[in-house]
Amino acid sequence: MADKIVPALIPEAGDGDSSAVDLSELRERIDGIDRHIQQLIAERARFAGQVGRAKGKLAAAVDYYRPEREAQVLRRVVDRNEGPLSDEVLVRLFREIMSACLAQQEPLKIGFLGPEGTHSQQAVFKHFGHSIHGLPLSSIEEVFQEVESGSADFGIVPVENSTQGTIQSTLDMFLTSSLKICGEVELRIHQHLLSRGGRIEDIERVYSHPQSFAQCKAWLRQYLPKAETIPVASNAEAARRARSADDAAAIAGASAANVYGLKIVAGPIEDRPDNTTRFLVLGRELFPTSGNDRTSLLVFINDQPGALHHVLAPFARHGLSMNRIESRPGHTGRWQYAFFIDVSGHVDEDAMRAAIDELAAFAREVKVLGSYPVAIA
Amino acid sequence: MADKIVPALIPEAGDGDSSAVDLSELRERIDGIDRHIQQLIAERARFAGQVGRAKGKLAAAVDYYRPEREAQVLRRVVDRNEGPLSDEVLVRLFREIMSACLAQQEPLKIGFLGPEGTHSQQAVFKHFGHSIHGLPLSSIEEVFQEVESGSADFGIVPVENSTQGTIQSTLDMFLTSSLKICGEVELRIHQHLLSRGGRIEDIERVYSHPQSFAQCKAWLRQYLPKAETIPVASNAEAARRARSADDAAAIAGASAANVYGLKIVAGPIEDRPDNTTRFLVLGRELFPTSGNDRTSLLVFINDQPGALHHVLAPFARHGLSMNRIESRPGHTGRWQYAFFIDVSGHVDEDAMRAAIDELAAFAREVKVLGSYPVAIA
Repeated sequence: MADKIVPALIPEAGDGDSSAVDLSELRERIDGIDRHIQQLIAERARFAGQVGRAKGKLAAAVDYYRPEREAQVLRRVVDRNEGPLSDEVLVRLFREIMSACLAQQEPLKIGFLGPEGTHSQQAVFKHFGHSIHGLPLSSIEEVFQEVESGSADFGIVPVENSTQGTIQSTLDMFLTSSLKICGEVELRIHQHLLSRGGRIEDIERVYSHPQSFAQCKAWLRQYLPKAETIPVASNAEAARRARSADDAAAIAGASAANVYGLKIVAGPIEDRPDNTTRFLVLGRELFPTSGNDRTSLLVFINDQPGALHHVLAPFARHGLSMNRIESRPGHTGRWQYAFFIDVSGHVDEDAMRAAIDELAAFAREVKVLGSYPVAIA
Repeated sequence: MADKIVPALIPEAGDGDSSAVDLSELRERIDGIDRHIQQLIAERARFAGQVGRAKGKLAAAVDYYRPEREAQVLRRVVDRNEGPLSDEVLVRLFREIMSACLAQQEPLKIGFLGPEGTHSQQAVFKHFGHSIHGLPLSSIEEVFQEVESGSADFGIVPVENSTQGTIQSTLDMFLTSSLKICGEVELRIHQHLLSRGGRIEDIERVYSHPQSFAQCKAWLRQYLPKAETIPVASNAEAARRARSADDAAAIAGASAANVYGLKIVAGPIEDRPDNTTRFLVLGRELFPTSGNDRTSLLVFINDQPGALHHVLAPFARHGLSMNRIESRPGHTGRWQYAFFIDVSGHVDEDAMRAAIDELAAFAREVKVLGSYPVAIA
């Protein structure tokens, strides 16, 4: 009986001896590389520890975390990359290495909109790596509060979903908060229509998560106006359901097609091709330029003819491109408006200083929400 | 107005020039190290790609994933480690590097008990790194099914919580499944009692997640029999509530004390000092020995005097230490029992073969559920 069990054990034994020899040679080389990588990581950690001590005390991570420096390191990683790994994967590995080196004394405490497993947590890990202490909080307000009080070193809040637009509650917090934006994170989400047969004519039902339906609303209205839409708990669940019927489809990521043996009927089908959620990193201070930054401003003005022109003109004059503008009713008076503006550049640069000075001469108040590295990979 | 904003910008500028010089020197060295690490990672990825091709085709990750090899690599990382980073952090970094190298063609598809953000997903990332395709499923049965059908390459299921004991539904699946165990993962969880004042006499209410209450039941009964226990959504939430009253405490991880400015009243307070959840990695084949393995067996026997002795004796005789034994009613006849047994060693080793042969002579059936590397860090 045991005979039946033990022999069929070793898949590699059947592969032939010649490839086995190559394999062990390859593996020896990989072992040598690993030894070397490990030495270098340890050395890097020691130097990073010295950076911490150069600040004159046994520093906690927050005392010497420098987002502009991390952005520079990661951009160099991307610039140098000649494969075979993708930029995205390499950036992730280096974020983890930096995260580990930084966390030697006391890791960064990062507040985010919980619970665990949300996109916000993904954004935390994407930006700060895993050597941090994550702090799941129950509202965007709380993320602001915990950073303000110092319970969290930084916070991450969603600010913009390319489908559903600006998350107003985040923007409104800046009207009164003294926190500074010191980073941005972008998470990209693609949706596909998947089915067993792969033919759109056969589809009478579509399964998906409600949020995914919202992201593909226009597409569904145009191409499957008669199909029944059935909300389920996750896109994976949707794909599994679609597998068991010829007239059903799922909206899910492309990888689910592989996993569930479905065909891609169409995709990407999200209404906005750049279907991303953008997050902001909140901190208590501004950081120096990384060389490729964005500045977020909040401009309070009195309502008067040509107000918008007055807001826009200084940036155009100084050759600064505006990425986004959004007006909100002000909070301190009836005749005021507030504009949230994102501009390319850093407040530490001459052109930006000059533009802000000109704007300040006209506006009731100009608040620099932050100057921070443009999101990487 | 803009004046007020721009100057106080650059925290580093105030640090004095001498440390700034040291810093830029340190950073240059770190940059050199990073360049070097990146070269080596790329080289490693190319060699790993060759391992894939040595199998004679453009291989998907599942075709050349070797858990015993990964375990050996990670053990060497731990053996070599002289700091400053912890074994745990280094193991995580190397898992990520291996994960990235393996995923060059098509990443591993890993089924787990969803939704995302669960301990099961943490176990997936801990064992396989992040360069995988995770497949959240809605039950343990489904994890088995998806691996059996080949939709998932591997699955991860919880099998044992040191507080709540064995997860029977997982064990029972093995009675009929043909899947093999090819790894184990341990996640450790410590609980502490935290309060603002730090004195146990003051505490009249305790906040925590219901699961954490379950893990600290005996301790609470002994030391805080009169305190009211108030379940909340997360331990972080509990800590935040405890912060606002002198007579309240929270059960949470020790790090929450730092984060929320609470004092540790007592801890660890979990009833079992080794409060971990153990997960099994499910695959479709057995793998060769890693040099430090565990074997899981399922032994069906007829009910007869001395049955347990007959099951245990062969392992003792061959000097194999047993880590766990658990009896279950069998599924194929009224007078049968099944024993789940974990033994140190690999079925490919002589002593284990011999013990299994002896056991097989006595048992109705011996099923090797798997031989797999003992969990690392």
